[in-house]
Amino acid sequence: MQFTIFEPANATGATLYFLSGLTCTDENFLLKAGPAAFSAAAELGITIVLPTTSPPPLGIKGENDNDDISGKTWDFGTGAGFYLNATADDWKVNYNMYDYVVNELPAIVGEVSPATVGKKRSVTGHSMGGHGALVVYLKSGVYASCSAFAPICHPTACPWGEKAFKYYLKDGKGGEEWDATELVKGASARAVVKATPILIDQGLDDGFLEGQLHPHHFVAAAVSSKVPVTLRMQPGYDHSYFFISTFIAEHVRFHAQYLK
Amino acid sequence: MQFTIFEPANATGATLYFLSGLTCTDENFLLKAGPAAFSAAAELGITIVLPTTSPPPLGIKGENDNDDISGKTWDFGTGAGFYLNATADDWKVNYNMYDYVVNELPAIVGEVSPATVGKKRSVTGHSMGGHGALVVYLKSGVYASCSAFAPICHPTACPWGEKAFKYYLKDGKGGEEWDATELVKGASARAVVKATPILIDQGLDDGFLEGQLHPHHFVAAAVSSKVPVTLRMQPGYDHSYFFISTFIAEHVRFHAQYLK
Repeated sequence: MQFTIFEPANATGATLYFLSGLTCTDENFLLKAGPAAFSAAAELGITIVLPTTSPPPLGIKGENDNDDISGKTWDFGTGAGFYLNATADDWKVNYNMYDYVVNELPAIVGEVSPATVGKKRSVTGHSMGGHGALVVYLKSGVYASCSAFAPICHPTACPWGEKAFKYYLKDGKGGEEWDATELVKGASARAVVKATPILIDQGLDDGFLEGQLHPHHFVAAAVSSKVPVTLRMQPGYDHSYFFISTFIAEHVRFHAQYLK
Repeated sequence: MQFTIFEPANATGATLYFLSGLTCTDENFLLKAGPAAFSAAAELGITIVLPTTSPPPLGIKGENDNDDISGKTWDFGTGAGFYLNATADDWKVNYNMYDYVVNELPAIVGEVSPATVGKKRSVTGHSMGGHGALVVYLKSGVYASCSAFAPICHPTACPWGEKAFKYYLKDGKGGEEWDATELVKGASARAVVKATPILIDQGLDDGFLEGQLHPHHFVAAAVSSKVPVTLRMQPGYDHSYFFISTFIAEHVRFHAQYLK
C-alpha cells in the first residue's frame, strides 16, 4: 500500500487526509493539486496524508478486468475501493479501505511522522474520495472536521455506488451503512457533527453532478437531522483537479480552524 | 410608505436593499442589525436601503384583523406584503410590494440620494424578506447579487406562503410566479444568475426551518438548473435578528464584490 505524506518543517502533528477519487492514486493529487495545498499547509503547520484508493492488484476475479460481472473496469476493483469494508466473499479479505484509512494508515503514518501521534486529524476528498471523507467522518467520530469536492453523496442512488455495493457487499446488501445521505440522518447525536459545518464544493459544469453526485440529497437529509453543511455551488468548474487546485487552500484553512 | 436610507460619507451610489420579514418595519433592522451592517457599508461606500414590508393600514377587510378569513393576523396584511403584486380584488390596488421594491422605491431613493441613480444595486433579506430578495433577484434581472437569511424558499409549499397566496392572488392562483424554488428552475438563461452565487445563511436552531423555510427545496431546484448557490447551515442560530447581526457584515462584503 503506497501513500504520500507532506510534512511541513513546522509540523504541529495536526493532519489532513485527502481521499482521492476513482482511478486515482496518491500521485494525482501530488502532481495536480499539491502546490496549492502544501503552501497553505506549510503556513499552518498541517501534515497532509494521501492514501491510494484501493489495494494494489491482487488477482481477485473482476479486479482489473471485470467486464463479465460489471461492465467497465475503471470504476470498480483496483483504483475504486469506495472506502468501505467489503463483505462479499471475493473482496472481504483485502478490500477494507475504511479500516485502512481510519485505523491502519494513521498507525503507519505515526511511525513515519511521530508528531502526528495523538494529534487531531481531519478529512477531505474528491468524488469517490468525497464520499469516503463524508463516510469516515460520519461513521468513525475520530475526525475534527470534514470537507469534500464534488462528493458522491448518495451512492445507494447512483450508478457508481450501486455497482460498487452490488459486488463489494454480500448479496449487495447494507449499502446504507456506507452512504453519506443515509448516515447523516442518524448523525445528529454526535457532538462534533452537530457543531462543525461540513464544507462541500461542487462545480456546476461537472458532468457527473446530476447522474452521480446528488449534493441536494445530502443537504436535504442534513437539514432534517440539523447537521450543519456549507454547500458552495461553483459556477464554471467541472470534475477535474483544476477544480480541486483552485479551492484546496481554502479547504486547508477551513480545517485548520478545527485542527488547533 | 416609510423607509430608511443609510448613506455613508464615501457613498459610491452602489446600494444594498434589505427586505425585512413578517411583522417588521425598517426600524427592526435599524435597531437590531444596523451597527454591524453600517460599519461594513461605511468602509465599502455602500448605501443601504430599508423598506417596510407592506403598505400602511388602509382599511382593507382582513388587513389587520383577519381572523374571519385567515386565522392569526401577524402573518398577513399589514407587515406581511410578501413582496408580490397582488391580483385579488381587495389587494391588487395597494399590495404591490414587488413593484414598490424593484421600481418605485429606487426612484424615490434617487431623489434623496442622487449618487444612487444609475448605479448597481443588490438585495438581501430575512425570512419573508429572504423570499422577497430571491424573488426580486430572479424575476427582475436588475440586481447584481442576492443573499438571504433564513428565507422562505418554497412558499407554495409552506403554511405562510399558502395563506398569503390564497388571499393576495386571484382565486389563489399563480403562486409559482412568486416562489423562488419555482422561479429558479427557469432562471438558468439569465447570465448574472448563472455566474453569481446566491448566498443563503440558515440557522439550524431555527424553529421555522422544517415547517416553513425549506432551503433544501431551493438547492435541489438550483442544482437541476445549474444556478450557483452557497448555502451555509449555521449551528446554534435561530430565526432572530441576533442571527442577522452576526452575519450581516459578511453579506455586505459578499455584495461589495459584485457592486463594484
